[in-house]
Amino acid sequence: MSKQGILTVVSGFSGAGKGTLMKALLKKYDYGLSISATTRAPRAGEEDGREYFFLTRERFESMIEQGELIEWAEYVGNYYGTPKKYVEEQLAAGKDVILEIEVQGAFHVRKQFPEALLLFITPPNANELKSRLINRGTESMDKIESRLHRASEEAVFMKEYDFIVVNDDLDECVERLNEIIENEHSRTLRNDSFIEKMSKELMAFKKGDL
Amino acid sequence: MSKQGILTVVSGFSGAGKGTLMKALLKKYDYGLSISATTRAPRAGEEDGREYFFLTRERFESMIEQGELIEWAEYVGNYYGTPKKYVEEQLAAGKDVILEIEVQGAFHVRKQFPEALLLFITPPNANELKSRLINRGTESMDKIESRLHRASEEAVFMKEYDFIVVNDDLDECVERLNEIIENEHSRTLRNDSFIEKMSKELMAFKKGDL
Repeated sequence: MSKQGILTVVSGFSGAGKGTLMKALLKKYDYGLSISATTRAPRAGEEDGREYFFLTRERFESMIEQGELIEWAEYVGNYYGTPKKYVEEQLAAGKDVILEIEVQGAFHVRKQFPEALLLFITPPNANELKSRLINRGTESMDKIESRLHRASEEAVFMKEYDFIVVNDDLDECVERLNEIIENEHSRTLRNDSFIEKMSKELMAFKKGDL
Repeated sequence: MSKQGILTVVSGFSGAGKGTLMKALLKKYDYGLSISATTRAPRAGEEDGREYFFLTRERFESMIEQGELIEWAEYVGNYYGTPKKYVEEQLAAGKDVILEIEVQGAFHVRKQFPEALLLFITPPNANELKSRLINRGTESMDKIESRLHRASEEAVFMKEYDFIVVNDDLDECVERLNEIIENEHSRTLRNDSFIEKMSKELMAFKKGDL
């Protein structure tokens, strides 16, 4: 079926378990994970080209100007963005690429890659989201409240995604994500050339050929 | 995720292996298979309500008039059609239903069930289709030629389907079909009520609640 790689954007509520999910998915299946670029300083143990591409502000701003980023944003004084080159190379080579990205960024990606597949990860219900955030035990109640508030804002955008994937059981969710992306290769819209080829071959059979 | 059953229409070229595929799919997974109604006489071994609902012309025509058929057609002097009642009952009970139906019928189904999932089964290429028709050894070359001609006409409609499923390996194809239908439950368009519920729950969290 379709030979071009599929660009999948994965978003989801903070606390939905995206990070763990992505790690498990990439460990089990062969996807390209796009590495973001940032102007923030590397933390202890972080490596350039592994966690992030660490860039100067000048370099990052020149990439913005040159249109070399699929999407970018500024948080707390630092730039974060997705370099276009890696994604395009992987897709052209037939490799499926996953971008883990927040809601606004997802829609920027779709503008540039209209055929991107947008997946939204959610816990089965809001109380479960709250519990997960609390059970992490790493954040103040204030911080958790602000994450829940943000989730309520993001929920409005869920309907713009192609699939809503409930993360209840990690392993099941990994399989679901993988299947959705796999099956996407069979979507008719991605198989114009197969259909054209099949039609041509069928029409080439002449009466009396057999 | 979505509780309503999904109505899947499976079409494909004659010789694509739909029959074998459907049998294997229904043996392994729990789908409702809609049983067609017909006015043709039962053949030896056929049972009313198993292969077909065998009806009189009067009964069939009254079903047409009453809008009790999702789609119907007349072939060689006999009516064939899909009773609506069984399909609607199964879907309401949350059961996924499969209709194996030809191209024109598929579009009639979609008109009445716009959310139906349309799958098209095809061999990997036209020569393979020809070989399979010849290797069946049950039909004259004339008949095979006319099937291939019909396939070339049907190929035009492939692009109206949601997914193109290549039947190369039977077991793989059964899994693919099952996964596509399973995943369809996670499609955003089928999860309006989940999204609404999640949004409401998230908005109900008040500042200072934690």
